[in-house]
Amino acid sequence: MTITESDLRSAAGSAAGGTRLARAIWAKVTEPADPVLGALIDALGPADALSWLSSLKEPRNEGGGLPAEFAGLAPQMRNRLVRALERWRPRLEEVEVDREIRTLEHCDGVLVTPEDEEWRRGLNDLGFETPACLWVRGVGKLGEITKRSVALVGARAATAYGEDVTMQLATGLVDSAFTIISGGAYGIDIAAHRAALAAQGTTVVVLAGGADRLYPRGNAQVFARVLDSGLIVSEHPPGSAPTRARFLTRNRLIAALAQATVVVEAAWRSGAISTARHAAKLGRALGAVPGPVTSMMSAGCHGLLRDETAVCVTDAAEVAELAGQIGEHFAAPPSIVPTLFDTLNGPESAIFEALPLRKPVALASVARTAGLSFEVTMATLAQLEMRQIAVREGQLWRRAKD
Amino acid sequence: MTITESDLRSAAGSAAGGTRLARAIWAKVTEPADPVLGALIDALGPADALSWLSSLKEPRNEGGGLPAEFAGLAPQMRNRLVRALERWRPRLEEVEVDREIRTLEHCDGVLVTPEDEEWRRGLNDLGFETPACLWVRGVGKLGEITKRSVALVGARAATAYGEDVTMQLATGLVDSAFTIISGGAYGIDIAAHRAALAAQGTTVVVLAGGADRLYPRGNAQVFARVLDSGLIVSEHPPGSAPTRARFLTRNRLIAALAQATVVVEAAWRSGAISTARHAAKLGRALGAVPGPVTSMMSAGCHGLLRDETAVCVTDAAEVAELAGQIGEHFAAPPSIVPTLFDTLNGPESAIFEALPLRKPVALASVARTAGLSFEVTMATLAQLEMRQIAVREGQLWRRAKD
Repeated sequence: MTITESDLRSAAGSAAGGTRLARAIWAKVTEPADPVLGALIDALGPADALSWLSSLKEPRNEGGGLPAEFAGLAPQMRNRLVRALERWRPRLEEVEVDREIRTLEHCDGVLVTPEDEEWRRGLNDLGFETPACLWVRGVGKLGEITKRSVALVGARAATAYGEDVTMQLATGLVDSAFTIISGGAYGIDIAAHRAALAAQGTTVVVLAGGADRLYPRGNAQVFARVLDSGLIVSEHPPGSAPTRARFLTRNRLIAALAQATVVVEAAWRSGAISTARHAAKLGRALGAVPGPVTSMMSAGCHGLLRDETAVCVTDAAEVAELAGQIGEHFAAPPSIVPTLFDTLNGPESAIFEALPLRKPVALASVARTAGLSFEVTMATLAQLEMRQIAVREGQLWRRAKD
Repeated sequence: MTITESDLRSAAGSAAGGTRLARAIWAKVTEPADPVLGALIDALGPADALSWLSSLKEPRNEGGGLPAEFAGLAPQMRNRLVRALERWRPRLEEVEVDREIRTLEHCDGVLVTPEDEEWRRGLNDLGFETPACLWVRGVGKLGEITKRSVALVGARAATAYGEDVTMQLATGLVDSAFTIISGGAYGIDIAAHRAALAAQGTTVVVLAGGADRLYPRGNAQVFARVLDSGLIVSEHPPGSAPTRARFLTRNRLIAALAQATVVVEAAWRSGAISTARHAAKLGRALGAVPGPVTSMMSAGCHGLLRDETAVCVTDAAEVAELAGQIGEHFAAPPSIVPTLFDTLNGPESAIFEALPLRKPVALASVARTAGLSFEVTMATLAQLEMRQIAVREGQLWRRAKD
């Protein structure tokens, strides 16, 4: 099971190739969001880290002692490394460099790593939980496509309300040139992708299993259409099964890929809420769509609003404002049809109301009823008369008829 | 039109009576929330302020000069006083002290002033816009009844959803011994009162006209029931008509009377939003109930949530938490039925998923699939075997059948 850095380099033809291959192997050996791997790659680089660790003797087999290389580490870090190596060893023992290269060469899609221009820089905000690499299928460059993007996430058991709002948001966001990002689940996820496709927009599916295992099967047709114009992304090597833990770690990728995340509909405890927490932790803009308080499927959104983790968003313009640069988007308040009263200032409104509809009254009576001075009453009545709102009959005043 | 302090005192029989009478007259002479009146009462007291101002010669009639008493004032204050006096003069000229006393004596209800124990201290937070006095009809003491209270406000054109939520909130709040406060309008206001009455709770109607003018007439039956167990309150003398401006100034009383204000349903621009702004200005707890983003009647609530003026509230417990003393109420998160996965920790869950349903596999295979060390895998399998979740067949492992 010893993999040396030169193995990796010669097998993959270059130092850069060695790094790519090492990242692909790390993705296979570890479960995602393993901070020990992140620290190790940060310290040594992916290829050196892999060859160093694979060359170590089994730590517990040397009479219970630790590898000599671990001696200089702080005890806590040493213990974490020992435990990590124990976690990784069962898979590390299976790795054959040549086979991994063949797998990479024949994989449908591209391996994108942090060293590539195509990498989405925002993923690095995940720190030690940054994925080792991503497998990307479809059309377009990951970094470019997700630069201006919104994640629309929510419940599998979405209501018709939730799916409607998702479709409205996705359509409006595509019209504002945003890419849509979501998982591949039934409910809100797939409604977001469907609407983005229908609006001829770009959409990105982030899967919890391999990018070749289009799960769930029921969404296969939508996934196929995504591959024609957008991307399907996974941090797992092709063939990997989606597991419960991987759905949760996958959520951090959705949050980190997108400029902003919006929870459209989610029960009190749900995967979408975990995505929201990741977005908040990353300091990304986070929105939640309100819904009826009688709907359990909005309870998670209301929870995010209650603790002020999320901003209340109700339409695509508000989401665009949330995601966009300051000043780039402004959600306009709804337009309102003005009434007569909107055209009247305070004294005008008071005097209009003080005027009788039929039997005219004296100026003094109007002033008393309106609570205004004689002078202001007189001047205002003159204004209202010109505007044909008040009518004078001799010395008396009444409202004009409609 | 000269009213002296001794007139007031002798007419009302005592200094305290003079203050009460003066406040009643001020309420008649001025429109509400007039900060000049507030400043004047603050400086001179209601009776002195009234006798001083009513004794002044008309400021503009003395060759355009100002009364000698105004000479010492700062120019801005002097100008404001001059304009205020012009506003008040048309009504001041009509005041007859004896008639005002008779009106007070025969009024159905009590005059409550800031000097009374029954006064709601919170009203003084309105500063110079504190009402001169309140006319109160019904059963109970204003200060006591409103000490533990929530204002439920909202649109006249409420939806069935809004009325349902209002009734749920009012019922729940009454069960937690809160008094309900609202206006008297159709829609949310009257739904709140109806539900409070139905739950045998206490409810307070704050009217924009005189407390004897039960407006709108369509709610007269509800108002009559409120008078049997709660209060109808107005800052306007009996007989006063509700005007547009008075609906808006009335809203500050609702906000100041209640511990917390909740907007249940409101269009983008509505009276309920003005009540909310008053509550926010007073530093009172403010909640907004979310609703479908497709409903214009929730747009105002969502606006308050968006700009974080209001806290998102979805049930009576959350409103009680908002209104109550810190620590007194806690809204419990909804209870959740646990699944098998809730009883498994991280490694247990990964190993459970790694176990085949039928054909058993070796420990090494389970460890690789789960991404865990052999040691952890072995220990965890033993745990799961004891809990009859995993089954051993010789050296191989599979899931237990349900």
